[in-house]
Amino acid sequence: MDERLQKQLDFSLEIDKEKNIFRQTHLSGHGRNENDSEHAWHMAIMAYLLREYSNEPVDAAKVMLMCLIHDIVEIDAGDTYAYDEEGLKTQKARENAAKERIFSLLPDDQKEELMSLFDEFEASETPEARFAHAIDNLQPLILNNSNDGSDWKEHGVSARQIYGRQKKTADGSEKLYEVTDQIIQSHIRKGTISES
Amino acid sequence: MDERLQKQLDFSLEIDKEKNIFRQTHLSGHGRNENDSEHAWHMAIMAYLLREYSNEPVDAAKVMLMCLIHDIVEIDAGDTYAYDEEGLKTQKARENAAKERIFSLLPDDQKEELMSLFDEFEASETPEARFAHAIDNLQPLILNNSNDGSDWKEHGVSARQIYGRQKKTADGSEKLYEVTDQIIQSHIRKGTISES
Repeated sequence: MDERLQKQLDFSLEIDKEKNIFRQTHLSGHGRNENDSEHAWHMAIMAYLLREYSNEPVDAAKVMLMCLIHDIVEIDAGDTYAYDEEGLKTQKARENAAKERIFSLLPDDQKEELMSLFDEFEASETPEARFAHAIDNLQPLILNNSNDGSDWKEHGVSARQIYGRQKKTADGSEKLYEVTDQIIQSHIRKGTISES
Repeated sequence: MDERLQKQLDFSLEIDKEKNIFRQTHLSGHGRNENDSEHAWHMAIMAYLLREYSNEPVDAAKVMLMCLIHDIVEIDAGDTYAYDEEGLKTQKARENAAKERIFSLLPDDQKEELMSLFDEFEASETPEARFAHAIDNLQPLILNNSNDGSDWKEHGVSARQIYGRQKKTADGSEKLYEVTDQIIQSHIRKGTISES
């Protein structure tokens, strides 16, 4: 087999490991914890279906691919929970090392392309990246909402923390931020989450 | 919330169930069974990275979305193993009912769009559908190969059955069929699978 195809298949096999990286979010129906590959799959479909609500027009292929690969670094770096303040301090360094190792399995042109797309997501400065972040927030929110906010309850997360995290949603989609706000407010009223 | 967005979110929540539909394929590292959403995520990335090997040029966004949604009907219909001859007889009817129920959760335009894309995949008559089928075959093959062919061993599958299934790979990609053939031949030599 030629070297290029061998590298592409090596990378393809390596990313299988993302299916073993579990998140704090639980599947609907009070299911088990979700893993990163499931989250990415779900996000990509949601990004496609909801792209009409992006504040700015987005390239559908680019936003889907961005969603699909945005957590690949967690194969080495692990998932850092959105409200884990200690973990968040070292997240960037852990993810940078992982990014270099994993994307280097690919042929150079595809390594550059995917690393650049990953960096673009992280920087959140393009329409696709801003919208992908909105979906990255909304996807676990709809699961958690369907489970009566049990992920928030488990971690004792406050409305202040949730709103802090969800600010990025409005940067990508004012419309989806409205939904987010409605969901958070309903859980404050129900007492699932505390106001401060 | 307006009706259109509500429908889109209802569908988004419904497809979460695909994460509970398990396949016969096992994850690399002799891991657990893979589920449909993980398989679809993996396929979409592989389709993007390997699209240069498609026999005909493909629209990247279309082939990725096709991969992402091609198994959604299994939420109701369940996974039918490629070599389950009894299950294959009723597969079409079960999947048609599921297709109608699940995609009907969406607004009409998106229902039509996704059903049409699903049908296009099934019919395997366009470049994107043929290439998506090649990837649908290749993705479990590389996992199974990494596990010394244990999925084939478990089911006592013969080379004749495997080649029958893999014919579609060549329709989508001669180059990926070459790889497939090399992998199958290596397992025949090692005695993982029998020739007839």
